[in-house]
Amino acid sequence: MGTMLGLIVTDAPLSAAFAQEALARVVNETFNCVSVDGHMSTNDTVLMLANGASGGSVLEGNELSQFARGLLEVCAELARAIPADGEGATHLITIDITGCASQATARRIARSVADSPLVKCAIHGADPNWGRIVSAAGYAGVPFDPCKVALRLNGYELYRAGAPLAFDADQVSASIRDNREAHIELGFGEGTENVRFYTADLTAEYVRLNADYHT
Amino acid sequence: MGTMLGLIVTDAPLSAAFAQEALARVVNETFNCVSVDGHMSTNDTVLMLANGASGGSVLEGNELSQFARGLLEVCAELARAIPADGEGATHLITIDITGCASQATARRIARSVADSPLVKCAIHGADPNWGRIVSAAGYAGVPFDPCKVALRLNGYELYRAGAPLAFDADQVSASIRDNREAHIELGFGEGTENVRFYTADLTAEYVRLNADYHT
Repeated sequence: MGTMLGLIVTDAPLSAAFAQEALARVVNETFNCVSVDGHMSTNDTVLMLANGASGGSVLEGNELSQFARGLLEVCAELARAIPADGEGATHLITIDITGCASQATARRIARSVADSPLVKCAIHGADPNWGRIVSAAGYAGVPFDPCKVALRLNGYELYRAGAPLAFDADQVSASIRDNREAHIELGFGEGTENVRFYTADLTAEYVRLNADYHT
Repeated sequence: MGTMLGLIVTDAPLSAAFAQEALARVVNETFNCVSVDGHMSTNDTVLMLANGASGGSVLEGNELSQFARGLLEVCAELARAIPADGEGATHLITIDITGCASQATARRIARSVADSPLVKCAIHGADPNWGRIVSAAGYAGVPFDPCKVALRLNGYELYRAGAPLAFDADQVSASIRDNREAHIELGFGEGTENVRFYTADLTAEYVRLNADYHT
């Protein structure tokens, strides 16, 4: 979570059990799917406080689903803001890992790609470097068939069925350079589990901020 | 291994079985204990070729131990040279993880500390930042008692029994700044397993080299 205290406050009347369960589920899909540099902090905390001040009886049925949808929306926006505001970041990178055999596999691959300094530098340098992205998936420590891997970068198809495709490198490079956001889509064709993960690129300014700052 | 083809050539008369077994063991303690940026390469390869050209009969007993010691020395020197020559590196960082319950635990902690961009930036900036080092061990995903953790940096004791000590930050900082090598010693008091790991610091020059270089 990039050293963050996340606090969600609501006046909705919630049971403690529902509030805890809903928050845990939503955190798993949002705050636990972002990284800036991969260094996890001892401070990372998300709390939800529900005081029931809106009055009325404890939410039930459809109202609970509505609340959960709203909570997901709020947490997704907050979580995304962490790498978007990462130290020295010039790109927010959205990583969609699709078609995995398990959720755990999808998450390990996403984290491996997100935390690769070479992938982060490639995006910073507007380099459509499919090799760095695919190899970061390869060392995630989970098995997959390399011949089924497919990759899109900013919507451009760079890699399919385990092999690179011909593409206009200048065009893809321009699409990275000219946008504050980049989109990596990596498909595995092994199952139906997906994950969306957010990270930041790696810049000289990140190094300056973290090398020059002393405790 | 930092995208490296390692080739060891010997004219010693070795059996194929011994050569393979000795190389695998030595690689585990040398080439598999270095990282530059944590991004593993599909190219990383170590081969040993033994043609027996020195003549004589196949090595036995003491001769084998002597050969294995020499092989360890050669591989240790070559492996250490990889992060020492890391892209943009200004420090070679030696990480000694000691007193772990298992070799696997020691290795996971070593890799977690070695690959933390914040630890790497701290060394680059000559910042004796014990918090970054200890927290990188903390998120390695292996259990240990935090109250037994001890840390030395370049021989200076910064942390003992799970708590920071008073130390002369300027003195420790100068010892990092004025040397091309840095030494992190992290003790856990959980057992007898140790590992020595080598990595490089993270610099703006690393980012420049890897963001500006396009495939």
